Amino acid sequence: MQPAPETALAIAQALIRCPSVTPEDAGALTYVAGLLERAGFEVHTPAFSEPGQPEIRNLYARIGRGAPCLVFAGHTDVVPPGQEGSWTHPPFAGEVADGRLYGRGAADMKGGIAAMLAAALAHLDRHGPPAEGSLAFLLTGDEEGPAVNGTVKLLAWAKERGERFDHCVLGEPTNPNRLGEMMKIGRRGSLTGRLAVKGRQGHVAYPHLALNPIPVLGRVIAALTDPPLDRGTERFDASNLEFTTVDVANPATNVIPAEAKAVFNIRFNDLWTPETLAAEIGRRVATACEEARFALTFDPTNAVAFVTEPDDFVHLVSGAIRAETGLSPELSTTGGTSDARFIRRYCPVVEFGLVGQTMHAVDENVAVRDLESLARIYGRIIESYLPPRNSRGTCA
Amino acid sequence: MQPAPETALAIAQALIRCPSVTPEDAGALTYVAGLLERAGFEVHTPAFSEPGQPEIRNLYARIGRGAPCLVFAGHTDVVPPGQEGSWTHPPFAGEVADGRLYGRGAADMKGGIAAMLAAALAHLDRHGPPAEGSLAFLLTGDEEGPAVNGTVKLLAWAKERGERFDHCVLGEPTNPNRLGEMMKIGRRGSLTGRLAVKGRQGHVAYPHLALNPIPVLGRVIAALTDPPLDRGTERFDASNLEFTTVDVANPATNVIPAEAKAVFNIRFNDLWTPETLAAEIGRRVATACEEARFALTFDPTNAVAFVTEPDDFVHLVSGAIRAETGLSPELSTTGGTSDARFIRRYCPVVEFGLVGQTMHAVDENVAVRDLESLARIYGRIIESYLPPRNSRGTCA
Ligand SMILES: [Zn+2]
Ligand SMILES: [Zn+2]
Repeated sequence: MQPAPETALAIAQALIRCPSVTPEDAGALTYVAGLLERAGFEVHTPAFSEPGQPEIRNLYARIGRGAPCLVFAGHTDVVPPGQEGSWTHPPFAGEVADGRLYGRGAADMKGGIAAMLAAALAHLDRHGPPAEGSLAFLLTGDEEGPAVNGTVKLLAWAKERGERFDHCVLGEPTNPNRLGEMMKIGRRGSLTGRLAVKGRQGHVAYPHLALNPIPVLGRVIAALTDPPLDRGTERFDASNLEFTTVDVANPATNVIPAEAKAVFNIRFNDLWTPETLAAEIGRRVATACEEARFALTFDPTNAVAFVTEPDDFVHLVSGAIRAETGLSPELSTTGGTSDARFIRRYCPVVEFGLVGQTMHAVDENVAVRDLESLARIYGRIIESYLPPRNSRGTCA
Repeated sequence: MQPAPETALAIAQALIRCPSVTPEDAGALTYVAGLLERAGFEVHTPAFSEPGQPEIRNLYARIGRGAPCLVFAGHTDVVPPGQEGSWTHPPFAGEVADGRLYGRGAADMKGGIAAMLAAALAHLDRHGPPAEGSLAFLLTGDEEGPAVNGTVKLLAWAKERGERFDHCVLGEPTNPNRLGEMMKIGRRGSLTGRLAVKGRQGHVAYPHLALNPIPVLGRVIAALTDPPLDRGTERFDASNLEFTTVDVANPATNVIPAEAKAVFNIRFNDLWTPETLAAEIGRRVATACEEARFALTFDPTNAVAFVTEPDDFVHLVSGAIRAETGLSPELSTTGGTSDARFIRRYCPVVEFGLVGQTMHAVDENVAVRDLESLARIYGRIIESYLPPRNSRGTCA
């Protein structure tokens, strides 16, 4: 008799105990590779790098060669713990207290990966390897960092090898407060703009000889917020622009400065592309600047707005959530960006994971009960997705 | 036979050759003291200091003990030369080319001091020491710097010794383009405010959980500029507010910052005191900030708006200017602050000097002809001011 497969809690604890702060792997993917190999997966751990950046380990694993192929995706890297002394349970200890698992990554998203692995292992333990469909894992160690040596390259690497995916579940923490209340079927795009308003330096006592760029910048701030960019769409909230910094850095209280700079970030919906949005911003800036010159640039972006239209697969996932939690998850497109923006170029992707309340914060934690529920939800998804076959040991 | 007194040009060249960048004296006041002592003045060069600041030399000289006492005031310190390599004539060489004297301080205001000294020396050479009135010099080495160990302390020091002044001419460069077009009979006040708008930090993807202080600051910038503070008065331009810096210094393009800071400076007329102005600004900021908290402080100021109402003395000075240049000088209150704001607490003060176009700039220079004209204007002022006596050597 084989030993029973690992529980989601045990896997999550093992992962939290690897201090895999980007770009460190700290043994996390080696541990996952071992679990998957023992369960019969073909496992690859390609490392990717860029000049001047540390090498990043990634993992691709698959069991079964046929279609359809369901991919579980996620990241094993975590953000730094911040003030370690402020944690009531050490960030890399994986301690359980009062029914909650504490540690960096508990919610985002070692807990989610643990639930996926536990679900897959339990499924294989019960049913054996899939007869027709296949199951894959796409895990990266570079999601919280620059995200250049992670999912983007791993997907390209897999495609190069002839791997084809049909649907993907990304295990990011999608629930604001309660497991089951929200899944994500899309994400807004993100565009960062940088503005420099050019004035003419001078003495405050002789303003007619100068051109102060600060009131011009004040007009730009107003013009980029009002009127709103849009009022939202069926699947998306209204696009939103936030100024993140304004800077002049002039220490002289009697000098009108020559230049004022600002940076802003826009989370935009499917009414816009980065190009149409940049054009609209450019028009508003030009109008607000009047006679003042300005320089406006936008950071390159690969985060465009996308949505996976609710189809059979979305209903399969939401049905599994409802069966386990009794809740009909909201089909949301809110929040930040995620690696789903890369995956959706290869296959439809939805996101569902734990409760994200404490992610990136001190004392990050999840309920152990949620971890177990999530593993059962992922188990139901696998069960519904893979074509049925005779149970293990009873094939004809 | 005594040697002829020094010319304004020669004195100006000697002063420019002392690199008296605040707080250095570099021999400038020693040179002036020698000239005045030889002409019969009683000369004092008190040094003042504050904890943590370098000691500053100043000069007080007087000839005659009786009233009325006419004071010439000025400063021998200069601002740094900036890029010395950009000067076509070295900043401390005092070179003359094409009828112009080049050097740091040529206009502001070693040229003015040289004209005062040349005028006084020539007057004494012609008429001998004053029979009834008296003539004084009040020169500081701390006008371009913090201005705490200069005119303020020198005036207090003189008052302590029982010195009383009736009228003062401050030799700052007052003419924008042409000698004779403008004298100053007052100055606007100056008030610097510092604002911090407090928001609530958050992630740009979750703006409803944050409060971005930057749009609030944008509203404050608009509210402090419009409507205008006033429309000017009989003797003054409209008060004017300029933002000198806005700063957030947030490097993260996905983070809404917690705070945005700004500094502004107001040049205000005689409709306001620093107190009434601070109250008005406080009201406007509070309205613009709406629900956002803010901290608003004002730097201590000793620059309040003042004016010397046109009386016999103002007409005496403008008459001397007209007699020499053919121009009726505008009685202005424009421009920055000057030490006149301190002197006016002791006696009526007017300002007249050279053309200020190149002051504080590379290749600062004045026309040698202007220097000579200014010396003759100052000579006419002394001549008209001091009660007549018999000419030298022919007293009964
Ligand atoms: Zn994550
Ligand atoms: Zn000056």
